[in-house]
Amino acid sequence: MQVAILLFDGITALDAVGPYEVLSKRPLPTEIVFVGKEAGPKKADSGALTLMADASLSDVPKPDILLLPGGPGNRGLLADRELLDWIRQAHETSTWTTSVCTGALLLGAAGILNGLEATTHWLSLDQLSTYGARPVQRRVVELGKVITCAGVSAGIDMALVLAARIAGDEVAQRIQLAIEYDPQPPFDTGSPLKAPAEMVDRVRQRAAAALRSSAP
Amino acid sequence: MQVAILLFDGITALDAVGPYEVLSKRPLPTEIVFVGKEAGPKKADSGALTLMADASLSDVPKPDILLLPGGPGNRGLLADRELLDWIRQAHETSTWTTSVCTGALLLGAAGILNGLEATTHWLSLDQLSTYGARPVQRRVVELGKVITCAGVSAGIDMALVLAARIAGDEVAQRIQLAIEYDPQPPFDTGSPLKAPAEMVDRVRQRAAAALRSSAP
Repeated sequence: MQVAILLFDGITALDAVGPYEVLSKRPLPTEIVFVGKEAGPKKADSGALTLMADASLSDVPKPDILLLPGGPGNRGLLADRELLDWIRQAHETSTWTTSVCTGALLLGAAGILNGLEATTHWLSLDQLSTYGARPVQRRVVELGKVITCAGVSAGIDMALVLAARIAGDEVAQRIQLAIEYDPQPPFDTGSPLKAPAEMVDRVRQRAAAALRSSAP
Repeated sequence: MQVAILLFDGITALDAVGPYEVLSKRPLPTEIVFVGKEAGPKKADSGALTLMADASLSDVPKPDILLLPGGPGNRGLLADRELLDWIRQAHETSTWTTSVCTGALLLGAAGILNGLEATTHWLSLDQLSTYGARPVQRRVVELGKVITCAGVSAGIDMALVLAARIAGDEVAQRIQLAIEYDPQPPFDTGSPLKAPAEMVDRVRQRAAAALRSSAP
């Protein structure tokens, strides 16, 4: 079962590496391939981490599972015809088509979320509706073979859901134990529904400012 | 504030990328450097992901924060004199010396955990005592400037604790919100204290078999 995880410059690394860590575990019958528009090194959004894409889009035309991570770098890809065509074609034959964080915007731009409930990073929920999706603020949204999830760290939760679909609950539970995923964050501010309103506003303002300053 | 994250062939990628994602976030005054014995590409334990080390040990002699990830590949490093010397020297001047998962074994082999409470992946807790550490099964163990944590995914929790030490609770809380770390695993089997005993035994047996089959 081939799992294609898209890489691009400006990716949020944990969006990709969280699910990878779950989906690469045995006894899942998976083969993970990191794929870029072109094969080669891709720099994460911080500038401090480089991940290698071992394959180009044309090397991986029919993955069983398509996984699209997010990150500020994918805004430049939302009108990339070659990439959107690849996503649409992969989706035609995929068993699952999935996204983490703002990877959902790529699914949206490819026309795959039209009329569907979907989710993304809380800061980008509104943008999902521009693609005809019905944004919902949930951790993981599973609609048939299309699975989207919330921001960054949510990819781990989504991948465990997917592992259970692939190989059953017990295998997914064993993987959770193997990666010791017994989360104990020191705070409880991981969702805009839980963090104080002023904090949510502040993070929203900083994100908007960062987006403006990075605009061409 | 320079954060040196060690990379090596056979690393468990999430051990490094989880904390990286937290510690690279602004407004933390951090600069992350991925460092290897030699600079260059390092293949994660699955064989399917390559991360780049941009620096060699000698390039980063005095990091403010030392972060040692785990993974099966570090067993071959537990007697590596050059690496252990670097760890010891970095620890002399570091503000924090930290490990994720079996990265604690490297700290142990360097003599840094002697007499200290420390933790690691639950499968390797016993091994910690061979280095004079007092193993405890907790998510994050903070003893002055030495911070160790449990397996793989625990690095995210540890990094949030560290972010709070660096810049205060509110900054850490904002980072938690930015990475939407509101974990909702579909199961509750992420700790040997929570998973069924048969599942714990099974994962333990498979890990032992994998270790035997990879032994030289």
